[in-house]
Amino acid sequence: MTRVAVLGAGGYAGGEVLRLLLAHPAVELVQATSEQHAGKRLDFPHPHLRGQSTLRFAPHDALEPCDVLVTCMPSGELIRRWPQVSTRAGRIIDLSADFRLEHAEHARWYPRAPRSVELPRFVYGLPEWTRDKIQGARYVAVPGCMAHAALLALLPLARAGLVRPEVVVDAKTGSSGGGATPDRSSHHPERASALRCYRPVGHRHTGEIESATEHLAGMRPNVHFSATAVPSVRGVLATVHAFAARPLADAAEPLRVLASTYREHPFVHILRANASASPFPEPAPLAGTNHCELAVDVDAERGRIVVNAALDNLVKGAAGTAVHALNLMLGRPETEGLGFRGLHPL
Amino acid sequence: MTRVAVLGAGGYAGGEVLRLLLAHPAVELVQATSEQHAGKRLDFPHPHLRGQSTLRFAPHDALEPCDVLVTCMPSGELIRRWPQVSTRAGRIIDLSADFRLEHAEHARWYPRAPRSVELPRFVYGLPEWTRDKIQGARYVAVPGCMAHAALLALLPLARAGLVRPEVVVDAKTGSSGGGATPDRSSHHPERASALRCYRPVGHRHTGEIESATEHLAGMRPNVHFSATAVPSVRGVLATVHAFAARPLADAAEPLRVLASTYREHPFVHILRANASASPFPEPAPLAGTNHCELAVDVDAERGRIVVNAALDNLVKGAAGTAVHALNLMLGRPETEGLGFRGLHPL
Amino acid sequence: MTRVAVLGAGGYAGGEVLRLLLAHPAVELVQATSEQHAGKRLDFPHPHLRGQSTLRFAPHDALEPCDVLVTCMPSGELIRRWPQVSTRAGRIIDLSADFRLEHAEHARWYPRAPRSVELPRFVYGLPEWTRDKIQGARYVAVPGCMAHAALLALLPLARAGLVRPEVVVDAKTGSSGGGATPDRSSHHPERASALRCYRPVGHRHTGEIESATEHLAGMRPNVHFSATAVPSVRGVLATVHAFAARPLADAAEPLRVLASTYREHPFVHILRANASASPFPEPAPLAGTNHCELAVDVDAERGRIVVNAALDNLVKGAAGTAVHALNLMLGRPETEGLGFRGLHPL
Amino acid sequence: MTRVAVLGAGGYAGGEVLRLLLAHPAVELVQATSEQHAGKRLDFPHPHLRGQSTLRFAPHDALEPCDVLVTCMPSGELIRRWPQVSTRAGRIIDLSADFRLEHAEHARWYPRAPRSVELPRFVYGLPEWTRDKIQGARYVAVPGCMAHAALLALLPLARAGLVRPEVVVDAKTGSSGGGATPDRSSHHPERASALRCYRPVGHRHTGEIESATEHLAGMRPNVHFSATAVPSVRGVLATVHAFAARPLADAAEPLRVLASTYREHPFVHILRANASASPFPEPAPLAGTNHCELAVDVDAERGRIVVNAALDNLVKGAAGTAVHALNLMLGRPETEGLGFRGLHPL
Repeated sequence: MTRVAVLGAGGYAGGEVLRLLLAHPAVELVQATSEQHAGKRLDFPHPHLRGQSTLRFAPHDALEPCDVLVTCMPSGELIRRWPQVSTRAGRIIDLSADFRLEHAEHARWYPRAPRSVELPRFVYGLPEWTRDKIQGARYVAVPGCMAHAALLALLPLARAGLVRPEVVVDAKTGSSGGGATPDRSSHHPERASALRCYRPVGHRHTGEIESATEHLAGMRPNVHFSATAVPSVRGVLATVHAFAARPLADAAEPLRVLASTYREHPFVHILRANASASPFPEPAPLAGTNHCELAVDVDAERGRIVVNAALDNLVKGAAGTAVHALNLMLGRPETEGLGFRGLHPL
Repeated sequence: MTRVAVLGAGGYAGGEVLRLLLAHPAVELVQATSEQHAGKRLDFPHPHLRGQSTLRFAPHDALEPCDVLVTCMPSGELIRRWPQVSTRAGRIIDLSADFRLEHAEHARWYPRAPRSVELPRFVYGLPEWTRDKIQGARYVAVPGCMAHAALLALLPLARAGLVRPEVVVDAKTGSSGGGATPDRSSHHPERASALRCYRPVGHRHTGEIESATEHLAGMRPNVHFSATAVPSVRGVLATVHAFAARPLADAAEPLRVLASTYREHPFVHILRANASASPFPEPAPLAGTNHCELAVDVDAERGRIVVNAALDNLVKGAAGTAVHALNLMLGRPETEGLGFRGLHPL
Repeated sequence: MTRVAVLGAGGYAGGEVLRLLLAHPAVELVQATSEQHAGKRLDFPHPHLRGQSTLRFAPHDALEPCDVLVTCMPSGELIRRWPQVSTRAGRIIDLSADFRLEHAEHARWYPRAPRSVELPRFVYGLPEWTRDKIQGARYVAVPGCMAHAALLALLPLARAGLVRPEVVVDAKTGSSGGGATPDRSSHHPERASALRCYRPVGHRHTGEIESATEHLAGMRPNVHFSATAVPSVRGVLATVHAFAARPLADAAEPLRVLASTYREHPFVHILRANASASPFPEPAPLAGTNHCELAVDVDAERGRIVVNAALDNLVKGAAGTAVHALNLMLGRPETEGLGFRGLHPL
Repeated sequence: MTRVAVLGAGGYAGGEVLRLLLAHPAVELVQATSEQHAGKRLDFPHPHLRGQSTLRFAPHDALEPCDVLVTCMPSGELIRRWPQVSTRAGRIIDLSADFRLEHAEHARWYPRAPRSVELPRFVYGLPEWTRDKIQGARYVAVPGCMAHAALLALLPLARAGLVRPEVVVDAKTGSSGGGATPDRSSHHPERASALRCYRPVGHRHTGEIESATEHLAGMRPNVHFSATAVPSVRGVLATVHAFAARPLADAAEPLRVLASTYREHPFVHILRANASASPFPEPAPLAGTNHCELAVDVDAERGRIVVNAALDNLVKGAAGTAVHALNLMLGRPETEGLGFRGLHPL
């Protein structure tokens, strides 16, 4: 059994990491930390863990050595605590934004983050695109949830040279992505009916998508990213509006590119018209799962290729990918501990 | 492997039965029928089954022999088809209301149902209360979802002689209990904000609760039942307002009665104040699970004992109990195939 | 024009008071106070007031003399500030719980409230039952929203001697009743799917309903009150389960009692089966209105009379009744400024 | 009083037309038709009209002559009934898509519509852009709700020459736009959590936006339109991603263009950062109102200009604009009968 600890496990992504680790056949959850809930049982803030564990939260400073550490702290915190934290585990999987970007990009999008050039490099943990690197990695940075959805949609088309650099990503997101700390914008009466483009420009995932597309697909795009809050709790839908760089062989060419890209990948699925009463990628039936569903449509007349990508921001967009990466790092089967396939209706 | 078929698997309870059976280690799902979706793959109406099976729906008449049959048809249908259906399987687990009540009670609450005295008796499938009978049963009737929640709350107090016969059950329910067939009252614009006591009196679960309490707890109550639609999809919360039949030993006596009743039962949990940031039974974190959560409160001054019971109407209130009964009938571990413990937040 | 000010206008009830006063033909809104938003325009926290006023919030201490003062502060605050506030206006309409109960009752339900016997008496502002007293009142206390709904349902039956003293009130409420201050239980991911009986016993509206029923209907009931949070923002549905004190003349007797009670009252309506595609009281189509809808059902066999009452907690349950009281105090038409009749679907 | 009738008033837009006309000081509502509800009172399907009228629905064929007729039938129906309907009123305001496009465009986007060249031309009823023409019009076609929002956002920038022809419109919409007829996709359990790009390409509003932009702003754009269903009932948010055609004078230039365009228009408002606790256009606080809120943001580095436009699809996007047009046609004040300014929170 691999001994795994979770640093910063009192929030929503942390709660999902705990859920997955507690059910993972090759893992022993040895410790979980939370300043706010220190001394409380894991199920105190996480009702879905009732009866799953008798462990109690430790404060961050009580973190003990373990085989693998999963870190779920607010952005900036892992960098700040790096000298101490890095001594606790040989392998670290981080869910924050601290190590997703290279130094210069990071400094640009997170200007207030404490960052020095001595920090190590993390492998960008997008398993469908960096599987080999994750397998040998010591440190893995899990992508941002909206960037994750957008990249799964965009990368195949970009790598195939099918689309131009100008790409519009219109991402829709539930409230859980904002974390477990109450504030006015997440207060239920203010948020329950929200349909609010809260970040029309300047969202930090812009840089992440641009950077990862350049590195993974060999094309530097101009990503025009906007994020809109919708009245749900879980889930991201990223609508990627791309434009054909050359005449398509036929209207099904983008579909073939997507399908062949992900054919061997267990967590990404391409939906086809007529195969379902509702053949649209939607987050709801994916809640709790590590799966991403994609669909592609073409407006041949105007040269637009639209890819919609749906996933659960807390699982495929966070905790599930952390476990996916853990499986790869440990040489375990890719899908181990990630078998849940969702509920419908929900 | 036990060969199981599902008759009427195109609806929501049927979809959950399929989900659970497909993941059950001791079961082979051999057939699923649906008139509406005959010829389509199981995931055509059930997006959460994508990638889980290549089976296609058969029409009802194509049902072949199997070891155990789970029937999920609208009330009245199984009675009507009994001569044919009963030849297909030695053991039948029914999710409809057809066999929950004894003949006379059934005729009273379902006056239009075709019912003759030659029909067999079904064991009432409330595992925490009829486990022994289910183990030896040929035919099991799964309780109604709201009756199920109310009974788990009421039966311990009734059996202990703690409460008077006059009991108010105020049940709140999401929309999925109404089934998969669209109509005006379930049309999203009409239902999305509904807070609607749609059945203040005369609900059929009244008879089911009265009858089961008499048989299982030895007290015939007068159940004052009302059902209210709330703006959610899954879940039932039953608030049982009961009244002390005698002075309580102390305010914790009802809690002790509940706790001791369910101590050995893996799917029923008593919530206690201070053990959780939100120590209230709620359906949301139970979605997809076979668990029921209970809490009890006492107004000593007015002699009221309130028990709240939350469960997922499609799982603990339907498909999960069917699988629970299946496990008992087959002599399998009670929790087999029912390990999912829910998501939070949702 | 009557010069009206609002003390504590930054919250949700305050925002609705402002909305109604700004549109009221006989009122000039002269001042609104908020500590949190002092210096900001009224529409800063209240988007529905955009373009309606150029007024800015003053701090509480800057309150100037006016004809009528509406106070919307947290419970306890008006009592605490009474020596100063009472010098500012000859007439005060309070939306808090500070003056709803008589001294002894108040001390019992609000044991931590600062209260002295020198405080004045307020008229209980339930216009359908205390209209005459409000007309001549100097000080009016607006009822609690759930008590308001329950009383409109219960009082006619109690006064007519139709029901026994044991009454169960099962109230369902949206999140706006909890106010504008964020906390964990109102954080959107925690509250969005809530179906949570958060106050099974001991709710303060218990005392308010008991006390008002005694005074207004001549019967002291034992009110068995529970409050359940449901996944909506606005609205209260109170389900009153009462029991016949004597054989009913016929099943329609309770309906006749309710109908005759409210025949002349413009804001209370009795729904009848067949008159509507959805003849159930529901808060949604009443959002923003000062109307309450009632329906009554009888279970003759078990002697239960169920009355459901729906209203908007922020309007009929707060701001609208304040304006209704204002109209009565000023001798204006009862419905002035309260003409909005709701939206559907919503 | 102008005598107005409504043809096809049983649906959601029709219900809102009735609500507005019943409260309009210069209008007498003389007739409303509905095949489904013929003989029933107006409030039978429309609970928000309770107590507002004693009128009953007539069948379509019973339509009598009136001064102005508002038609709210499914697309294709008014064309089909034109010979009869056109004899009933000298002025007609249509809410369907039948007369929004010129003949050739209509035939292309609605290939199955019965349409002959003898049909009259309707003025495109976008009051902020065609006010003069509406004032003298006999026939007015109300824009589609998503096109309406997109055009209010795009037209000022297009007319000012600020943006290039390639425009992405990512529209989000509640369920009420789909009408009052139940089907699977609008069944509550299927729709409640929907975040579904149900029309990624090929939406008919594409043609409407392209055509109106060409006629009203002098630029023929390539509109890349996608429509996404979100979990709400009312409201549209259109996110218009446009690209600077030339270097902007400064980052505030688009804001100045929008502000100056709508300075004199009572129903369109430009939101500015810091003026509100939530300075984002959102449909919720606009529900029931005839107002549209806009905000503009600029990504100077990538040359993108994003305009978000929020409105209530049933009012500003349908019934309210019909009444706005009616006011203009009758020479009444533009805002008459349209004073409602919304609710918050909702």
